[in-house]
Amino acid sequence: MELPSKYLNNVVEQFASLPSIGKRSALRLVLSLLKRSPEELDVFSNAIIEMKDKISYCSSCGNISDYETCSICANPSREHETICVVEDIRDILAIEATASYRGIYHVLGGVISPMDGQGPEDLNIKPLLEKVAQGNVKEIIFALSSTMEGDTTNFYIFKKIAPYNIVVTTLSRGVSVGTELHYADELTLGRSILQRLPFESTFK
Amino acid sequence: MELPSKYLNNVVEQFASLPSIGKRSALRLVLSLLKRSPEELDVFSNAIIEMKDKISYCSSCGNISDYETCSICANPSREHETICVVEDIRDILAIEATASYRGIYHVLGGVISPMDGQGPEDLNIKPLLEKVAQGNVKEIIFALSSTMEGDTTNFYIFKKIAPYNIVVTTLSRGVSVGTELHYADELTLGRSILQRLPFESTFK
Repeated sequence: MELPSKYLNNVVEQFASLPSIGKRSALRLVLSLLKRSPEELDVFSNAIIEMKDKISYCSSCGNISDYETCSICANPSREHETICVVEDIRDILAIEATASYRGIYHVLGGVISPMDGQGPEDLNIKPLLEKVAQGNVKEIIFALSSTMEGDTTNFYIFKKIAPYNIVVTTLSRGVSVGTELHYADELTLGRSILQRLPFESTFK
Repeated sequence: MELPSKYLNNVVEQFASLPSIGKRSALRLVLSLLKRSPEELDVFSNAIIEMKDKISYCSSCGNISDYETCSICANPSREHETICVVEDIRDILAIEATASYRGIYHVLGGVISPMDGQGPEDLNIKPLLEKVAQGNVKEIIFALSSTMEGDTTNFYIFKKIAPYNIVVTTLSRGVSVGTELHYADELTLGRSILQRLPFESTFK
């Protein structure tokens, strides 16, 4: 797809560099931007520039926050001795939306992925280990993606915190609520049988 | 979905204002941008700002072009008396990719759509009518979307150029090449029967 303008091509290539945006979708986005006024485009591009300068991270959990401490870590009614380890802010939004969790979070900013050149030192793991070492943590809940990289990361942290007397849990895996059984993949269905629960626990 | 940072929220809302990008997808795009260096973000936002200043339009057909006349209009080996009327640059890319067309184009920049407050005067129609009035046009091919808005626009232009002695054609509609017949929608299938072609014409 050869575009008749190098300036158009520049913007299209920038948009196409975003995840899951192909060159065709990028062109569609850019053509819609092209219909906006220069002022609107200034607002758009300023938001991008400002983001990097202004967005900061919670000094406690590593979540994105405009303040020194994020609203969850700063909330005294949350259980600060239970820490749920997640990849990024989207996981926090997802778990918060369930209204099922009263503890706090720790955001790693990714998972260990040697293929992408991402090792443990590139992630926000050290502050978590320090918290644990200070003895303020009772339970760590792993809520990373159920992938090889996620499992590797879980295991890495698990080994590091093994010397401390901490309950380590992970999200239960199983057939989705509301799913017809025959649509579940083998691995998930197998796990739900092996990790079957007392029926009474479903009344809670 | 309430985000814990107003700067993050600003960018996410900007991206979510693009067509077919929801707030969740926008957040994913923004989080990937957030991992880039400030220099890379400058390149991204500059491409957007520059676009509006630098992108210009072919004075003849209205297509996006870095030059006064686009490469198609400037090409002497194209048939300048045949004009294909399209909505935007994507349609030109699509038709050029077929290598089946030797004429030139005219880009309207949209279709007449009263619902969106877009009338004939908002489109690049006048220069087309002027070209016709100058007597340099032998055939006009309508290649707009097959929607009510597209049909309205075709009809509007058709009426305007009726006084001149010009062949007016439109793209043939019919069952897609390579499609199994029973997947075609009724309207399309109906049209392909009514507008059936001499079998010999398929040998070309």
